[in-house]
Amino acid sequence: MPIEVVAFDADDTLWHSEDGFHEITGRYADLLVQRAPAATRSGVSDLLDWTERANLAHFGYGVKSFTLSMIETAAAVLGDNVPVSLVREIIGLGKELLARPVELIDGAAEVVTALADRYRLLLITKGDLLHQERKVHESGLARHFEEIEVVSEKDEATYSRILREHGVRADHFVMVGNSVKSDVLPVLAIGGRAVHIPYEFLWQHEHAEHDGDVPELTSIRDLPVWLATQP
Amino acid sequence: MPIEVVAFDADDTLWHSEDGFHEITGRYADLLVQRAPAATRSGVSDLLDWTERANLAHFGYGVKSFTLSMIETAAAVLGDNVPVSLVREIIGLGKELLARPVELIDGAAEVVTALADRYRLLLITKGDLLHQERKVHESGLARHFEEIEVVSEKDEATYSRILREHGVRADHFVMVGNSVKSDVLPVLAIGGRAVHIPYEFLWQHEHAEHDGDVPELTSIRDLPVWLATQP
Repeated sequence: MPIEVVAFDADDTLWHSEDGFHEITGRYADLLVQRAPAATRSGVSDLLDWTERANLAHFGYGVKSFTLSMIETAAAVLGDNVPVSLVREIIGLGKELLARPVELIDGAAEVVTALADRYRLLLITKGDLLHQERKVHESGLARHFEEIEVVSEKDEATYSRILREHGVRADHFVMVGNSVKSDVLPVLAIGGRAVHIPYEFLWQHEHAEHDGDVPELTSIRDLPVWLATQP
Repeated sequence: MPIEVVAFDADDTLWHSEDGFHEITGRYADLLVQRAPAATRSGVSDLLDWTERANLAHFGYGVKSFTLSMIETAAAVLGDNVPVSLVREIIGLGKELLARPVELIDGAAEVVTALADRYRLLLITKGDLLHQERKVHESGLARHFEEIEVVSEKDEATYSRILREHGVRADHFVMVGNSVKSDVLPVLAIGGRAVHIPYEFLWQHEHAEHDGDVPELTSIRDLPVWLATQP
């Protein structure tokens, strides 16, 4: 079946994202360990991850949720009182993460630009609406995409709706992303194709068991050839 | 010109929202005044409003932004330390506001259901993506709307994009909402029509000066007749 529409995940597929969360988590753990000597960096990081997952149903994905979870975790670690200076520093870390300049993944700009001549392109991403829109704008790639879809969950229902709205058949559709759980498995389940391009860091929540039968590329630079050689 | 598409704002147009922020702000002010006797309820409320506006550029609209602003304001009011119990209570207020059941505005269900037979309907709303989706789903009205657009800002560019994507001419389009600033003025500016249905509370940020030449209805129940009598 000919490929007509290529959809890209954004964070950690077109630009770096998880490395920022990773760095901010490290600096956050340092702040807490300084004030609660019984705490360890890895203990803080695990508790933050647990709090984030527990808060997903309330707050959803993105930096604001992450910032609220950092504050909640600090309250759990510190006992009676949280110094006001620490509250300010944590909110400052959140704002810093939101303001981080977009840094494109090596090869992303060239590949998106080249594919835009040949396929209809979509961008499908989770997270804070305002933050994602700002990153798309800053990336300089927005003009290549027929639509930017910021969604609250990437599941079969979401992909089915997007295909329906864009009038594209599942067997003419390919999704490209760094998460097997969000970008690959639900698309395969509705009869589409998907290709996994792993990123250096994977948020634990995005981990998925699979039988290894998932197409995988080392770099986005390999995507044009992979697409051209699809049956 | 015949009206083809009727678009509705959601919060405070189809269901109650600002009354929840109002109630939570009152309970939040009580919590702070108990712990900082020099503070007054109205002083806390003004400072929170100021913090929210200052944070809009970073955090955008919605309950998560509001919760982060409540925490930042508490840090400003309380001086050296914020009791952990207070941090927990504030995050709890945010979660409570997110979990508040949807309460439809009187007449909204009947009017939306009736208009769906005659016009194409859209829902255009700001705020947290996940929260807005949940409210739309809970409202029971989702099936009447051709599309739910959760946007980061309601300005001329946003309305122009939505009209373009739905293939509707501005002079065939009407927007219905409780904010002159977000629902009326930008739509009039691009050549569409708009009607203002005020809500009991208006968030200060949504206040707009206008010359009074804005069509206004007392109740959503008056909308079908207003639409039917448009030239």
